[in-house]
Amino acid sequence: MESSQTSSAKVTSGFIEELKKIVGNGNVSTTSAMREQHGHDESYHVTSLPDAVVFAQSVDHVSKVAKLCNDNGVPLIPFGSGTGLEGGINATLGGVSLDVSQMTKIVAVNAEDFDCTVESGVTRMNLNSFLRDTGLWFPVDPGADASLCGMCSTSASGTNAVRYGTMRENVLNLEVVLADGRVIWTAGPNKRCRKTSAGYNLTNLFVGSEGTLGIITKAIIKLYGIPESIVSAVVHFPSVQGAVDTTVQILQCGIPIARLEFLDEVAIDAFNKFSKFNMKVSPSLFLEFHGSSSGVKEQVQIAEDIVKGNGGEDFKWATDPEERNRLWKARHEILYACTALCPGSKPYSTDVCVPISHLPEIILRSKEMVKEANLIGPMVGHVGDGNFHIFFPVDEKNPKELDAIKDISHKMCLIAMELSGTCTGEHGIGIGKRDLLEKELGKDCLDVMKDVKLAFDPKMIMNPGKVFL
Amino acid sequence: MESSQTSSAKVTSGFIEELKKIVGNGNVSTTSAMREQHGHDESYHVTSLPDAVVFAQSVDHVSKVAKLCNDNGVPLIPFGSGTGLEGGINATLGGVSLDVSQMTKIVAVNAEDFDCTVESGVTRMNLNSFLRDTGLWFPVDPGADASLCGMCSTSASGTNAVRYGTMRENVLNLEVVLADGRVIWTAGPNKRCRKTSAGYNLTNLFVGSEGTLGIITKAIIKLYGIPESIVSAVVHFPSVQGAVDTTVQILQCGIPIARLEFLDEVAIDAFNKFSKFNMKVSPSLFLEFHGSSSGVKEQVQIAEDIVKGNGGEDFKWATDPEERNRLWKARHEILYACTALCPGSKPYSTDVCVPISHLPEIILRSKEMVKEANLIGPMVGHVGDGNFHIFFPVDEKNPKELDAIKDISHKMCLIAMELSGTCTGEHGIGIGKRDLLEKELGKDCLDVMKDVKLAFDPKMIMNPGKVFL
Repeated sequence: MESSQTSSAKVTSGFIEELKKIVGNGNVSTTSAMREQHGHDESYHVTSLPDAVVFAQSVDHVSKVAKLCNDNGVPLIPFGSGTGLEGGINATLGGVSLDVSQMTKIVAVNAEDFDCTVESGVTRMNLNSFLRDTGLWFPVDPGADASLCGMCSTSASGTNAVRYGTMRENVLNLEVVLADGRVIWTAGPNKRCRKTSAGYNLTNLFVGSEGTLGIITKAIIKLYGIPESIVSAVVHFPSVQGAVDTTVQILQCGIPIARLEFLDEVAIDAFNKFSKFNMKVSPSLFLEFHGSSSGVKEQVQIAEDIVKGNGGEDFKWATDPEERNRLWKARHEILYACTALCPGSKPYSTDVCVPISHLPEIILRSKEMVKEANLIGPMVGHVGDGNFHIFFPVDEKNPKELDAIKDISHKMCLIAMELSGTCTGEHGIGIGKRDLLEKELGKDCLDVMKDVKLAFDPKMIMNPGKVFL
Repeated sequence: MESSQTSSAKVTSGFIEELKKIVGNGNVSTTSAMREQHGHDESYHVTSLPDAVVFAQSVDHVSKVAKLCNDNGVPLIPFGSGTGLEGGINATLGGVSLDVSQMTKIVAVNAEDFDCTVESGVTRMNLNSFLRDTGLWFPVDPGADASLCGMCSTSASGTNAVRYGTMRENVLNLEVVLADGRVIWTAGPNKRCRKTSAGYNLTNLFVGSEGTLGIITKAIIKLYGIPESIVSAVVHFPSVQGAVDTTVQILQCGIPIARLEFLDEVAIDAFNKFSKFNMKVSPSLFLEFHGSSSGVKEQVQIAEDIVKGNGGEDFKWATDPEERNRLWKARHEILYACTALCPGSKPYSTDVCVPISHLPEIILRSKEMVKEANLIGPMVGHVGDGNFHIFFPVDEKNPKELDAIKDISHKMCLIAMELSGTCTGEHGIGIGKRDLLEKELGKDCLDVMKDVKLAFDPKMIMNPGKVFL
């Protein structure tokens, strides 16, 4: 699916003037610094500069910029917070990076219905601090303080998904600007009912579409009551197998655990060094329980028995909020902690996901490959979902090292597929995994996706060069 | 979106012979009785006969029949259990009714991963009785013993959705035969991981597509552990307001209630008569709690306090399985009970869904309209989702009555839309609500859905005349 866009030659000075007419002079930038900042996400992927960066202040801006780009065949790349890990916002074919991070209105909070409406620039932390006094929160938490509409776009998930689901399960409706500038609500204007059978589920077609079908400008998302009781714990195991077996058994017991995170000994070492902890350097689980006081007590008791049965020891409990926040803040900085193991490096993250019964096999095989290649490969997993990462610190100036890492990542994807799993549980395809998509889905399925893409974006201006080769 | 199919003139004797070559003589029927049986669902919608009924025995059959129909421009209507309520399987333009109910294999149960794979003819009761000894179950329960793939197709939900979600949240992957005969898995062949970000979410595009994009031949769905403790209760209220306020407060307290069903006094009367109960004839809630023994006790205690605070009385508890099954079996026969209020009538079901804070308003306004029109309108609701029905018994020979009912149903849909809700929470658009879809979604959104339809089915053979006008 080669894009019909040829190059950035279409972004002429006249085109830039048209952009300025729409959004105002101050909201268009062609400086190297701004283009550089918008030419890469947080991953190792090579920077690709857009020709111009446009800061939209309204849906109307987004709509008019899209129409202008569509009329002129100019690539249009939606930019949220730039915290992705598969090069989703890199301007591989040049064009306009449309930064929607300045649209930061929390449009409505319907506390009694457990939902809210946010503009594209509202980040998950913005929202949760705004909600603080309502007793509500939005739990999906990919670690980075990503924009919520960006999280929709990449189908983000993270540490709480085992209990609260991913973005797929938490978005009720989206306002979307299509490639030609039309503005739609995927479930009808301002609809926010919990269920609907009215027409196709366009909401979940846009969730995870990585900016290739349109630009998400508003999201109506579910909220949850802050649990009466929250208890976190860290527990260490003599072996990876013990930690993984514990995970599988906790889930199979039906404990409604809120977080169930695995860190291997290399990740714990990185964690200790970066976040000034002094944990035992061994395979570990970070757990969190949400519920009523007595409900949490019951969950904890069952989990403790399972942990002990698998050789877990040194339970460290964090019940007071400060201690808990310190623990999870550090856990969420693990990508940076792993990168800091090799100063000057960038993170290369794998992202496979398998049915939980296959976790032990793929984790052990992956660790074996890392060992054989003599690499530093800290492993961190949302193992409750069967999803885990190796956060390799990669030296960009060492192509041999990058090749070895790429080789392992590729092999892990193949193993995941062989075990009824996927090459990406939450980071998306971006530019990094386009070559794997046909293998995972089959040619006919991929062809159908391309047909869907063309139905939304016949001129192929929306984030070209992503998802599809 | 007029279909390009003109009529059933294309179903020639030569075409019938071709069908027989694919599936065998015994699996093609053109008898009036068989065509009649496949020309309508359980609703009041006028029967529309297919020209032929084909019983597929395999995916290969489905694929070849689809290709033949596509090559000849013959309408193709997937038929599961025929238990729909919006005329989704009626052959409004003739053509072939493709009955997939004989493909009844439970392909795999992965108990340790809480998932299973079923063929298109497996019904929800088939599956649950097959699972009985595993400690697992599939909770989505629309009442009728519908086929699971049919439930995918209509995005079914029902009484358990407040806790376990609708089909949208419970399908991991689908095998689908496209209009031209290609067979795809929407998330890649046999993939069954809990999370994926690999390409577009075609799975949830097919869920709720009502047979207009392809034929679902296999589904991989989530399973759940049977709760340690299950307690049901019925409680009566002096007013509708008390029952509805109780609903809203139970949800706002965060009780993880498994079922939360409303029946008004008219529905209770029908229920008593049809299922030989002797309940107090007043607005009532049917509740069910799932969890550990102590967890359920805690839920029940909080719920009881809320019920009492709203004037609820006469709590009737059903803790032993037999009593509970009798209660819910009767609750699930309520459509038939309501129809039996007027012998010889057919059911006309409304199906609006709103954010729960708007439930009191729309329920009271709807009841007022029924009263003013002097109609029998028993009201039954999955009120935990904000979704409720009036099951009007309608005399087909009384067009005036039908018009009055249609008028109220239409007005209820408009009120729901005005209150951020939908004209259909779970029954779908079918042929009954096509005229409302544009009002609900907006023209541009509807146009996008039509583009998606054309991307999958350019010759418009798949269940033509449904969803779109």
